[in-house]
Amino acid sequence: MGQVAWKGLFLSLFDYKTEKYVIAKNKKVGILYRVVQLSILAYLVGWVFVVKKGYQDTDTSLQSSVITKLKGVAFTNTSELGERLWDVADYVIPPQGENVFFVMTNLIVTPNQRQATCPESVSIPDALCYKDGDCPAGQAVVAGNGVKTGRCLKERDSIRGTCEILAWCPVEKRSKPKKPLLASAENFTVYIKNSIRFPKFKFSKMNVLATDNESYLKSCRYSTEHPYCPIFLLGNIVRWAGSDFHEMALEGGVIGIQIEWNCDLDKAPSECNPHYSFSRLDNKFAEKSISSGYNFRFAKYYRDADGVDYRTLFKAYGIRFDVMVNGKAGKFNIIPTVINIGSGLALMGAGAFFCDLVLLYLIKKSNFYRGKKYEEVKSRRRYGNAVNFNGKQRPVPGNYIPPNEFSQVTPPSFIAAVSWEMREAAVSWLVYKWPCTVSP
Amino acid sequence: MGQVAWKGLFLSLFDYKTEKYVIAKNKKVGILYRVVQLSILAYLVGWVFVVKKGYQDTDTSLQSSVITKLKGVAFTNTSELGERLWDVADYVIPPQGENVFFVMTNLIVTPNQRQATCPESVSIPDALCYKDGDCPAGQAVVAGNGVKTGRCLKERDSIRGTCEILAWCPVEKRSKPKKPLLASAENFTVYIKNSIRFPKFKFSKMNVLATDNESYLKSCRYSTEHPYCPIFLLGNIVRWAGSDFHEMALEGGVIGIQIEWNCDLDKAPSECNPHYSFSRLDNKFAEKSISSGYNFRFAKYYRDADGVDYRTLFKAYGIRFDVMVNGKAGKFNIIPTVINIGSGLALMGAGAFFCDLVLLYLIKKSNFYRGKKYEEVKSRRRYGNAVNFNGKQRPVPGNYIPPNEFSQVTPPSFIAAVSWEMREAAVSWLVYKWPCTVSP
Amino acid sequence: MGQVAWKGLFLSLFDYKTEKYVIAKNKKVGILYRVVQLSILAYLVGWVFVVKKGYQDTDTSLQSSVITKLKGVAFTNTSELGERLWDVADYVIPPQGENVFFVMTNLIVTPNQRQATCPESVSIPDALCYKDGDCPAGQAVVAGNGVKTGRCLKERDSIRGTCEILAWCPVEKRSKPKKPLLASAENFTVYIKNSIRFPKFKFSKMNVLATDNESYLKSCRYSTEHPYCPIFLLGNIVRWAGSDFHEMALEGGVIGIQIEWNCDLDKAPSECNPHYSFSRLDNKFAEKSISSGYNFRFAKYYRDADGVDYRTLFKAYGIRFDVMVNGKAGKFNIIPTVINIGSGLALMGAGAFFCDLVLLYLIKKSNFYRGKKYEEVKSRRRYGNAVNFNGKQRPVPGNYIPPNEFSQVTPPSFIAAVSWEMREAAVSWLVYKWPCTVSP
Repeated sequence: MGQVAWKGLFLSLFDYKTEKYVIAKNKKVGILYRVVQLSILAYLVGWVFVVKKGYQDTDTSLQSSVITKLKGVAFTNTSELGERLWDVADYVIPPQGENVFFVMTNLIVTPNQRQATCPESVSIPDALCYKDGDCPAGQAVVAGNGVKTGRCLKERDSIRGTCEILAWCPVEKRSKPKKPLLASAENFTVYIKNSIRFPKFKFSKMNVLATDNESYLKSCRYSTEHPYCPIFLLGNIVRWAGSDFHEMALEGGVIGIQIEWNCDLDKAPSECNPHYSFSRLDNKFAEKSISSGYNFRFAKYYRDADGVDYRTLFKAYGIRFDVMVNGKAGKFNIIPTVINIGSGLALMGAGAFFCDLVLLYLIKKSNFYRGKKYEEVKSRRRYGNAVNFNGKQRPVPGNYIPPNEFSQVTPPSFIAAVSWEMREAAVSWLVYKWPCTVSP
Repeated sequence: MGQVAWKGLFLSLFDYKTEKYVIAKNKKVGILYRVVQLSILAYLVGWVFVVKKGYQDTDTSLQSSVITKLKGVAFTNTSELGERLWDVADYVIPPQGENVFFVMTNLIVTPNQRQATCPESVSIPDALCYKDGDCPAGQAVVAGNGVKTGRCLKERDSIRGTCEILAWCPVEKRSKPKKPLLASAENFTVYIKNSIRFPKFKFSKMNVLATDNESYLKSCRYSTEHPYCPIFLLGNIVRWAGSDFHEMALEGGVIGIQIEWNCDLDKAPSECNPHYSFSRLDNKFAEKSISSGYNFRFAKYYRDADGVDYRTLFKAYGIRFDVMVNGKAGKFNIIPTVINIGSGLALMGAGAFFCDLVLLYLIKKSNFYRGKKYEEVKSRRRYGNAVNFNGKQRPVPGNYIPPNEFSQVTPPSFIAAVSWEMREAAVSWLVYKWPCTVSP
Repeated sequence: MGQVAWKGLFLSLFDYKTEKYVIAKNKKVGILYRVVQLSILAYLVGWVFVVKKGYQDTDTSLQSSVITKLKGVAFTNTSELGERLWDVADYVIPPQGENVFFVMTNLIVTPNQRQATCPESVSIPDALCYKDGDCPAGQAVVAGNGVKTGRCLKERDSIRGTCEILAWCPVEKRSKPKKPLLASAENFTVYIKNSIRFPKFKFSKMNVLATDNESYLKSCRYSTEHPYCPIFLLGNIVRWAGSDFHEMALEGGVIGIQIEWNCDLDKAPSECNPHYSFSRLDNKFAEKSISSGYNFRFAKYYRDADGVDYRTLFKAYGIRFDVMVNGKAGKFNIIPTVINIGSGLALMGAGAFFCDLVLLYLIKKSNFYRGKKYEEVKSRRRYGNAVNFNGKQRPVPGNYIPPNEFSQVTPPSFIAAVSWEMREAAVSWLVYKWPCTVSP
C-alpha cells in the first residue's frame, strides 16, 4: 500500500466505534420498560442480596476435627460369660474416639478356641460330606472356618456329616440371641466435640460452650434449650434417624450424624451454631435379609500356662456411627457485591426483549418504530442510476451511495425478529444467570 | 435547572432505547448465516442435550456407607508359631469391616518379648559401639528398640559390638520370609456392601440384590453376569489393578477400589448400577527400594503366672484396601433445560462474527455494506459551513447538524473491524461457554 | 396470508441483521479507548495468563494414599507399671499406619480390674448416697462405672458415701499425672509416605526420593535442604503448628498435617513437590477446661489360671495426627487458552463504557456525538404533514416516513444515558468475570 494508505490505516486505529441507538419517545413502552426494570430490581434486591446473600464472599473449605467419647454401662447375664458388666472399654470399637465408632449391642461368644481339629459347622455347604473322599486334605473350606484334614466326621448313624477341619476349635455356632444382649445401649451417651475453622476468614469455633462448670457437661443433654451441649442419647439419635433402636440393635446398622455449620460472619460469632441431623446410612429392608445388618468378628487372645495360644471369638452386632461435618461461611466482601450489582444491572436489560416486541409489533405505531429500528439496505448493480430526493438524476462518484436513498423500511417478519430479539434477551439473562466468579 | 429542564429530565426517564440494525438483503450471507445457525443448533441438540444431558439437574453430594466382610482361611507352618490356621479374626486389621481394611500376607514374628536388657540389633547404626563410653546410659537409640544402659556388648573376640538396651527383649531380627507366608490370601473373598443415597432426589440404592436366597450370596462371585454380587476374590482385585499378587503379598501395598454411581434417574431404578474399578495407590518401584511396600508392627500382650507382662511382636506385611465411593445423579428439571436452551440461542448468534466478515470484506458489495453499517461522523469547528444536498449554503441554528451531511462512508480498516467483530462474537461464544448456574 | 406474503416471509428468513455503528473520528477519545484497551490487555496477559495460568487445564481430583510409620522409644518409671520401655507397638493407636494415628503421651493406669462389687468413685455425682435407698439395685450409675447393687458404702464415721456397684473393680481414680509420662515423645519421628496420582494427566509421584541408599532415609530429617525426606520430629510438628509440646502432651490434642501438591505439569516432574503445613485442629482454650484435650480409654485383657478374666484399664492422653492431602495439577490445553483469550477480548470492550461517557458528555463536541449516536424518533398522528428538506410539502404514501425528518437530536438525560451505558459495560465486564467453563 502507498504511504497514504498506511497513514489512513494507522489513523483508523484511533477511531472510536459506538453503537447507534434509536430513542423511541413512546411513553407507554417507556413506562412498561421501567416497570419491568423495577420488578427485576425488586427480585434482585430481594432474592440475590437478602436471601442468597450475594454481597458475601464464601468459604466452603472447612477444616474440622471430631472427638467422640461414650459413657454408659450395660449388665448382661449369659451362659458363656456369666454375670458381666460392660463399660466403654468393652463395647466401643475402636476406642480412639474418632469420627467413626461402633457400639456393640448384640453378640455371639465362642470362648476358649484352640488350634485343633474338629468338625466344621453344618451350615457351611462346602463342608458337607458323605465319605472321606469328599474332604481333600489341605483344601480350605469355602466360606468356612478351616482347612480339611481328609476325614469326614458323621454323627452316630447319620449318612451325611461335615469334614473335619484344622481351625480354631470349637467352631462358632450360628445362633444369634433373639433379643439384643446390650439393649441398654439405648441409654448410653455420646459426647461429640467438634472444632471447626474457616481458613479464609481465620474463624474458629467449637460446638461446646467453654465453661468451668464441670457439672453442667456431666448432666446436660442436647436439646433446643441446650444447643451447646452436644451430649446425645444413642436411643434418641436412632429415633431421630427414623429407626427403631431395638430392631437396629438386634441386626446392627449404620447411622450418620451430620453436623452442618452455616455461618454468617457479618453477625456475632455467637450466632454461628451447628445444625445436627441424623439419618440411617445402610438400607433397612422390609423383610429380614442376609444382606441387612452390620456385624464383624474379632477375638481376644490369651496364653495358658503351657504357653499355648487360645482365644475367645466374638461376633459383634451393633451400630456404627459416622460423624460427618460440613459447612460454609460468608462474609461481606466488596468484589462479589460489585459483581452481583453489575449482573443485576445486566439483567435489567432483559426487559428489552419484551418491550421491543411490544414496541415493534403490538402497539399502534409499531410499523413506524420497526422502520426506524431496522434500516434495510440492498445493493444495486450500477451506481449510475442514483436518483435524488427531488427526482433529478445526478452523476455520483464511484463508491458513493446517497445515504438512505433506496432504503425501504420493510419490516422484518415477526419470526425473524423474534429470533433476533430472543438472542438479545438471552444474552442479558444468561449473563445474569451465570454468577460464577473467579477471585481476582 | 429550571422547572422545564427538570420536567424534561423526568420525561426522558420514560424514553425507550433500542439498537438500530441494518438489514442486509443479501441472500448469500443470509443463507450462510442460517447454515451456521443450523450447524450450531445441531451441535447444541446433539452434544449438550443428548450426550451431556443438559436438561437434567444433577446431585453430586452422594451419601454413602460401606460395610466390608472378608472370608477365607490360610494355613501356615513356621518355627515360631508351628502349624497354624489363620482366619478372619487373625489376619484382618482392623476387624470392624469399614471402608479401609488390611489383610496380612506376610509377617515376622518375635514371640515372648519381656521388658529386660539385651543387645540391640546389629542393623541399627546408632547402636554400634566399640566401648562402654559409646553407649551413654538413658539415651534412646535412634531408630532403635530401646534406651542404652551404658554397656557395650560385644560377641566373643569381636572389636565392634552393639549397645546393651532396656527394651522388649529379645529384639526383632530383620529377616523377612522370602515367600509370603499367607500367600493363599489370594483366594480370600471380600464382600463389599455399599448403600448410597442422593439426598436431592431422595433416591437410595444398594449394590446388593435383596434376596432371601442365602445360598446365592454364599457362592457367587462378581462378574459381568453377576453385577449384583459384590463378592470379590482378592487375587482378582490385585490383578485387575495391574499388579502381581505374589509380589505385592511379599512387600505389601495399597489397592484402591473405586465404586462409581452415575445414575440417570429419568430411567428405571434398576438401570442405576455401580461401576467398580481397581488401581494400585502406592507406587511400585521397578527395583526394590526401602520406601516401597506397606508394613507395620503390632503386639499381642499376655501376662504370665507371676503377673509379669510379656508380648508377641508382629511385623505385618500386607495389602490395604481403600474403598472409595463417588457418583452423581441426574433428573429432568425445567430450569437447567430452559437455561441451556437460552444459552444455545445465544450461541447461535456467534455465527454473526463470521458472517459479518463475509458481508463486510469478502463479497463483492462489501464496500456498500460497510458504508451502511458504519456511519462515520466528524464534528466541524464552525456550523456556518453547512452545505445542503443541492450545494446551496443555508444558515443553521446553533446545535443543529444536518443529518448525514459530511458523513462520509469511509470503510474502517480491516484490522480495526476484525477486532470489533471479534469482540461481538466473543461475547456470544463466551456466554455460551460459561454454563455455571446458581440455582434460584 | 396470501402466497406473496408467505414468499415474503420465507425470503425474510434469509435476511441478515447487523448492528449499525457510529464511527466517531475523534482522536482524543480514540486514543483514550486504545489506552484503556492496552491497560486491560496488560492486566489480562499479566494476571490471567502468567499468574493464574489461564492457558492450563486443571485436575483437582487427586488420588492419594498415605502410609505412616513412627519410630522412637520412651522410658517411664511408675508405681503401677514399674520401669518400662515403651516402643511403637505400645504407644501408637491404631498400629496400621494410616493417615490418622494417635501417639500416647500421658496415661492413667488402673491394673488388675476384675468383675466384682466395689464402691463407686466419689467424683461421680449420681453415686453419692446417704442410705441404701439412694442406690436402687440394677440401676446404672449415670456417667459412672457400673450398676448399683442396692447398698450404700460409707467410709468409717462418714455421713455420705458412694453406692456399691458391680463393675470392673477397683474403679479408676481420677488423678492425672502432673507431667506427661511419655514426654520424650517429642523426639519420636514419623515417616509419612504419600503417593499421589492425577488421573486426568496420568501423572504419579511420591513424596519420597527413590533411593537404594538405606542409611539416608534412616538418618535424615525434613528440612528445606532435604525436601524429599518426609521424616518429621513430633516436637517440630507441634511447634510448627504453633503449640507447646509439653502442654499438649499433658492434656492431649489434635494436629493436622496438610500435604499440598500444586503441580505445573508443563514443567519438569522434578518441580512437582509437596508443601507441608501444620495446624492445631482442636481448640486450645486459654484456661484449662473440661472440654479441652483429647483422651480415651482402652483395656488389655488377660485371663488368670482360674480362667477368670481380668484387665488393665488405660486412660490415654495424647496427640492425634490427621494427615490430609489435597492438590491440583495444571497442563497446557488449547481449550482454556482459547476461552481465556476470547474472554479477554470481550473485556477489552469494557472500556467502551468510560469512553462513551467521555465522548457523549465530557468533551467539547459531545452534543454533536450524542446527536449522532441517539436517533430520536417520535411517531405523528397524521402522515400528511411530511415536510421535506427543502421546505416543500409533498404527499407521502401510507407507511413511509422520510428518514430523519422530525428526528430531533435531543440528548438523553445524563442519568438515563449513564444507566444505559452501565448496562453495556456490565455485560462486557461480567462476561469476563465469569470464567467458569464446562469442558466440551
